[in-house]
Order: sequence, then structure tokens, then C-alpha cells
Amino acid sequence: MMARREIFRGFTNMLRGVRMHSGGIARKQFAKIEESDISTFRKLLGEKSVITNDDSLEFHNNDWMKQYRGNSKVVLKPKSTEEVSSILKHCNARKLAVVPQGGNTGLVGGSVPVFDEVVLSLSSMNKVLSLDEYSGVVECEAGCILQNLEEHLAKHGFVVPLDLGSRGSCQLGGNVSTNAGGLRLIRFGSLRASVLGIEAVMADGTVLDSLKTLRKDNTGYDIKQLFIVPRKLESVHLAMLGCNNFQQVLEAVAAAKFKLAEIVSAIEFFDQQCSDLVVRNLPGMSHVLETSSPFWVLVETTGSEDSHDSDKLYNFLNYCMEKQVVEGGTVAEGGTQMRKLWGMRENIPMALLKEEEVFKYDLSVPTSEMYNLVEIVRERLKERYPQAGVFGYGHLGDGNLHLNVTCPTADKEAVESILEPFVYEWTAEKRGSISAEHGIGQMKISKLYLSKPPELIALMRQIKGVFDPNGILNPYKVLLDE
Amino acid sequence: MMARREIFRGFTNMLRGVRMHSGGIARKQFAKIEESDISTFRKLLGEKSVITNDDSLEFHNNDWMKQYRGNSKVVLKPKSTEEVSSILKHCNARKLAVVPQGGNTGLVGGSVPVFDEVVLSLSSMNKVLSLDEYSGVVECEAGCILQNLEEHLAKHGFVVPLDLGSRGSCQLGGNVSTNAGGLRLIRFGSLRASVLGIEAVMADGTVLDSLKTLRKDNTGYDIKQLFIVPRKLESVHLAMLGCNNFQQVLEAVAAAKFKLAEIVSAIEFFDQQCSDLVVRNLPGMSHVLETSSPFWVLVETTGSEDSHDSDKLYNFLNYCMEKQVVEGGTVAEGGTQMRKLWGMRENIPMALLKEEEVFKYDLSVPTSEMYNLVEIVRERLKERYPQAGVFGYGHLGDGNLHLNVTCPTADKEAVESILEPFVYEWTAEKRGSISAEHGIGQMKISKLYLSKPPELIALMRQIKGVFDPNGILNPYKVLLDE
Repeated sequence: MMARREIFRGFTNMLRGVRMHSGGIARKQFAKIEESDISTFRKLLGEKSVITNDDSLEFHNNDWMKQYRGNSKVVLKPKSTEEVSSILKHCNARKLAVVPQGGNTGLVGGSVPVFDEVVLSLSSMNKVLSLDEYSGVVECEAGCILQNLEEHLAKHGFVVPLDLGSRGSCQLGGNVSTNAGGLRLIRFGSLRASVLGIEAVMADGTVLDSLKTLRKDNTGYDIKQLFIVPRKLESVHLAMLGCNNFQQVLEAVAAAKFKLAEIVSAIEFFDQQCSDLVVRNLPGMSHVLETSSPFWVLVETTGSEDSHDSDKLYNFLNYCMEKQVVEGGTVAEGGTQMRKLWGMRENIPMALLKEEEVFKYDLSVPTSEMYNLVEIVRERLKERYPQAGVFGYGHLGDGNLHLNVTCPTADKEAVESILEPFVYEWTAEKRGSISAEHGIGQMKISKLYLSKPPELIALMRQIKGVFDPNGILNPYKVLLDE
Repeated sequence: MMARREIFRGFTNMLRGVRMHSGGIARKQFAKIEESDISTFRKLLGEKSVITNDDSLEFHNNDWMKQYRGNSKVVLKPKSTEEVSSILKHCNARKLAVVPQGGNTGLVGGSVPVFDEVVLSLSSMNKVLSLDEYSGVVECEAGCILQNLEEHLAKHGFVVPLDLGSRGSCQLGGNVSTNAGGLRLIRFGSLRASVLGIEAVMADGTVLDSLKTLRKDNTGYDIKQLFIVPRKLESVHLAMLGCNNFQQVLEAVAAAKFKLAEIVSAIEFFDQQCSDLVVRNLPGMSHVLETSSPFWVLVETTGSEDSHDSDKLYNFLNYCMEKQVVEGGTVAEGGTQMRKLWGMRENIPMALLKEEEVFKYDLSVPTSEMYNLVEIVRERLKERYPQAGVFGYGHLGDGNLHLNVTCPTADKEAVESILEPFVYEWTAEKRGSISAEHGIGQMKISKLYLSKPPELIALMRQIKGVFDPNGILNPYKVLLDE
């Protein structure tokens, strides 16, 4: 599977000496787009692929959470690698800044322009090109939507080794370039390990072709990557367990890793605050069980033999009940109930967006300490900001906590000052990561130093320079200037 | 798990204008080691860690196959990151070239000096530092021997997500720096995806610390890596199947991926020529079965519930018999028989070394065409060199073919001229890789262009320059000068 040219997203610098606060970023000395550039683009791509009307620009200038807003005057929708190359050749020569854009589902403002960068949208390169059913190798364009690929593969008995809540809009190019994590990481590992090859276009228009259809290749640096799709297995089971405290959650996870071992495909958790919010904010949603529980754990299994898998699942549940690790729960019977259980977990981000303000943190924390942060933050806000909500959910298989804090707009700045830099510093102190899977983008640009030592940041900057000497690709993201 | 400083192995250039043939490489203008350097090293590391006597140097100057020989005058065995840093600081300032060395089990001459480079051996940094039994995160030094780590983990119910024939001598630093493949790739994926963090020392002595104990971190380029060990599962089964032709082999593999799915842990094959050679060349080895078969396939399963796994295995075997995919075979009963079956596969490299001359190729080829090359080469040699032997074995799960050709010393050059560049060109034509898992080292330095486009090689050279501006680390390997 290839992700055309998106690997460069985020390889960028910011203007020297600019203040870190997002309000204070200054435009760098890139050229400004002129009528002659638009004519050139029209000649290169044809009329329809060059978008300049305000309504269409609106979507591409804004991220889906409406947190970041750019002011681009032109969106380009190339239909081939050659067109991408011709665009970049022109932009690099003219010193026009460019922001590559996939499904625009990012959470850190990485895929929208900051000023007037040319938006290079991959959405017209959306085809699945080939599938080798023998080896499970699939080739697709960078703009291919995850769910479309999933549906295409399902017909042939395969699955994408990645699943995300945003599957209906996110694109493979963005998934690969950001090494998207998501719900199945515990089973299939980091997406990067499944990518087999990439055809990429450099900032100057050079096409790098490292498409390979082979699983192993140790002939150089990891510029190309490996990607293979696994067989779709028909036996899927899902259980939702209620726990009284986070220690029980931890023990349930340990038991699942041992008793369900090779068939575990996801282990997720959310607190009761999350499920209450989903029911309150989203029409048509109701609680799965009548009882409430401070913590809910979803355990999904996927295997090749249904009777074996139910045996294992019931053994696991019995073990949990005997050891008093869980207080209650349910096993989904059939697809409808399964969708209802998953719906509770997957609708949490949507329910949070209905609140006036929401602060989102995506942290890796040692699993045993994951929930401590939620409780500490709750404690810190409780007295002075009783209207603030503190929500914890995430991927237990890999210690990825999504901490979300909501509040009325009136309290926004005060609450922010309590949250930051506290949350980032607490995480850094635990040797955690301040961006487990969302990336840095604009949002966390001034926080990078909390996850990376300065020597490493210096190297990142130099490597960025190798790929993009003029710094035209996705400026103002990830790296501050020295 | 961390691999200290070995990530830079192979990030090197060769002298500008030097001829490609290995006999023609000229020493670059590095400094020569002087008595004062030796005194400095003794001060930095203590007497015992500075080795200058000829007998001890001999091991470090030669690779295990006796194909590559260097002429280093000093081997350094640091015991800490600080000592590694102090060595490199001195060597970089003095412009002394350095070759890092792990277990020296490589197959392409990557870990031995070419001229008089300082050998920096990691073998005194061999400790397992910690294991978090809850998350499965293990931390060890770069010189830790794979088998020692395996034994340490087994006591706690975990396994290393990697297994290699050279497990008794190879070191984790080398495994990680070369992204070693081996026997379990089909189950655990590329080693790279399991590495969690690396503490590395740059060419100038700067220590880069990206040790993390978290599974996800998307805050920058992939300089650090992720590494987690999975739970050790107790139910292991092994079957050896005989096939009449390679088409049957392919169908057996497809059936295993579908019928055994989540419990497959290895799929290997070797031809009858290989098993005959093992029996002929190695004392104490005998054929596993009385019948002979042109092809043998080893299928190993690993799971959490023995009765489920035997059910699946027997279903798979019945399916293969019914579909006439296999002609016969055996299922190992107990550890002794299992070791005997694995022994047949794992002793092939050793049996090959007993021949007068052996040409070794490690290729990734689309699985369906894997064996064609073996047959073509056999055909090309048959008439004029009847004493030449052509052997095919490898990892079916990922299309990795080990093609080996043996011959009497008298025929060496003539046979080589038939094999090369033919084998590399045939592989490149199939869009394969000329080094699936062995790397480039000295051996394939002039063949890199067959697997990588020139733009990519140019990028590799620039990235090497970022990490090692003076080019002191492992010169004369991987990259030719422009």
C-alpha cells in the first residue's frame, strides 16, 4: 500500500524568532499566489482540479473541530503522481508554501493552512489499484478513504490492519504519514510496520519510487515502509465489563492478555462520565446496561474458529468473576448489539464536541498510572470550576489515554491555565509522550521539547532540511525554528 | 528495549572515485592509530577494555564465515553509554574511523573492519536492565545476547518477538540496527515495530536518549523505535509436510494462513537438496522421514489453549490431504522431535559452510515466483558445472528466499560469473529486494542501485551526513561515494 507524497507532511520549520503562542506566529517570506500561478496550475491540472471559489475553500481552510483556520486562496486536486510532481516543481521554484491535505480529520491543526499556503488535496487520488490475494499486498492511492478500502478488502476476505473512528473520511496517505494508531494496534502493531512501499514526491517535484510488493527489504534507510493486509477472520466477539476502580481495570486487561492471548483484537476503556455524556449529548443513544459502573472495559476478540473463541471468552469472564476483577457486564449477541457497544466508545469524541469548549489531550502514560492524571485534573478543577467536566477514555492495550476537559466558554482561559502546562509536564515527568497518536501539528508545536531532547529536535530539523531545503512543505508545524 | 548506539552502523560513505570491486577499495584519509590514542583509551576505559594482542584481535578482524578480513590494531569494549560517548568523542576529534561490532554474526561483512578501523565491541554491555511484567516492556544493553534475553524472559512468561539461527551469539544492538528478520516475522512483524526506544551515541559522542516505556509516541521522526515483548504462550505445535512441487507448497501456505490464522508462528520451507546436505555434512543428523520429497514445509503454531490448537492443526492437515496439497508428513510429538524437525531447517547454513565454496543470496521475491530462480540457476549450472549444488530454503510467510550455490574452489570464478550479476538482475526485474534481511555491508555495496532508485540513494547519503559529518562510523560499507 502506498501513500503518495504525504510522508512530508509536517517536515517543517517556523519563522526564526517568532513567539510560540499560536496567535503570535508571523508569516514567513514565501511568495504570494498570483494570477499567473493559478493559470499555470490550470494548465498543469485542468480547470476542474483548481479550486478558487470561497465556498469550496471554506472546507479546506478549516479543521473539522473548527479550532484552526487558514486563509488559502487555492486548493489543488491532482489526479496522478505526475500532477503532484508538477505542482511541487512549480511551487518550489516560485517559493510558494504548500500544505498537503488528506481527509482533514486531524486533531492538532496539521492539515490546514496557517496563512495562505497552497492546499494540495489528495482527495481525487482515491483509488484502490490492486490486491494480490495470494500475498495480501494491496496498492492504493494516498487519497483512498479508509472505509472504502475496508469495504473493498472485505469482499476478498481481507482487512486493513488499522481502524479509526474517523474511518468514513480519513485517507490512507494521512494514516500512513501520521502513523495512525487507533483501535486495533494491540493486534496488528504500529501501522508503519505494515507499510510495504511508498511512492512519494519530494518538495522539488522529484518522484521517489520505493514501491515494493515484498515483505522484507533491508537495503537502506527506512524511507519506504512495508504494508500488508491480513486475512479477515469471521469469528468476532465483544464483551463490555464494568469495574469499580482502575486497579480492577488493570487486572482485567492483564487477564485478557493472558487468557485471550492470540485472539484479542482490541481493549478499550471509558469512564462513566464518558457514557453519561454520550447519552446526554447525542440523540438516540442510551445506556447499554441499567447498572452504572465507574469504569467500562470493552474486550474484542477476533479468530478463525467460533467455538474456540467463545470457549476462551467465557473462560476469561469466569476467571474475572471468580477473582472479583469485574462487577458485571455483558457479551454482545449479534451485530446490532456489537454496534451498540462499540457505538458507546466511538461516539465519545462526537459527544465532547457538543460541549461549549473542549481541551483534548492524547497522552501515552504507563498503563498503571493512566487514570491517576484524570483524577488529579478532576480534583484541581472541582472547587473553582464545578461546571468543568473531566473525561478519561482510551486504548488500554498500549497505555494511550485520551483526557478531555470541557467547560463553559466563560471559564475557558482560567481552565486552560490550570491544565497547561501542568498536563504536559506531568506526562513528561512520567517519561510519557505528549502526543501518543495525534501528532504535533500546530497545536503542540511549543510542547515538543517536553517529549524530545534538544539533540533529537536538532536532528529532526536537519533531516527536514534534506527533504525540503526551501521549507515550503507544511510550514509553521511540528518544528519551531532554532 | 534499547539498542545502544548501533543504529549508526552502516551509515557510511566510501572514498570518492574508488572502484567498486572489493579488491580495489582504497583506504580513506582517516588518521592512523598511535600509541597516544591507545593511552587515551586506557585512561578512558581502563586497561582491560582495550585489547591489542594479536590473538584476541583475530576474532574481531574476521567475520564468522571467513569471507571478510580487516586489520584493526585495537578493539575497545566499553561498559557504559558514557564510555561509548568518550570513545567516539576522541575518535571524531582525531578523525579515527570506527566500526561498531555486535556478535559479528552478519553475512555481508558489515561488522568487521575493512582496513584499520577501531573496533568498538558492545560485548561488555550485555545486561538485561529491567522488565515490567505488567506492560511487557524490557530494557537491555546493546551487547545482550539474544538467547540470554530469551532465557531471562522465559522465566517471567514472556518471549522476544524475534528468533534467529544465530541466537546464541547475535546481540540485540545488531538485531535492532539491522532490523533482523528471522523465523517469527510472520507472527510478530518487523522487529522495528516492536522497538520502543533507543539510547544512541552520535559520531561526535553526543548521547541521544529516546528511551520511552510507552507503546505510542507520534511526536517526531522515527529515530527512536518501539519495543515490547509478548506473553509466552505454552501451546506449541510443529508439523513437517512433504510436497511434490512448489505449487503445492504455495497452496499449503495459503491453507495455513486461512485455517491456522491467528496461531501460525512460522512457515518455513527447504528443498530435498538442503536436507540431503544436512545429513551428508553434519555428523549425527539423519532424515526425519524415510520417504523423500522434493519440498518440505515446516508449519509451527503457538497459542494459549492446547486442545484448540491441535484441533486447528488437524483440521488444517486433513484439509491439505483432502485437497492433495501435501503428499505426506509428520507432526512432532514432544520437545525432542520438535527440536529434530527445527534442527533440519536451522542446520542448513552450517551444512553449507562445510562445502568448499558457497555463494549466499538473501532475496525477497514475490512468493509465487520464489522457487523459479532456484530452478533457473540449477539449469544454468547443470551441464558445465555438475559438481555445483543449488539449494533453496527460506521464510514462506514473507517471500524471503535463501538461495545458496556451492562449488569446488577450482570452479569458483567461473560459477560466480554465471551467478552475478544475473541473480541480482533477475530479482530487480521482479521488483524484489537483493537483501531481504542480511543488509548490504561490504558484500552488496556495488549492488545497492539494483534495489534503490538513485534519488533514494542520494537521500540516504545526505541523511548519513547529518548523523556522521566526518564519515568516521563504519566506512566502506553500504554506500559508495557519488
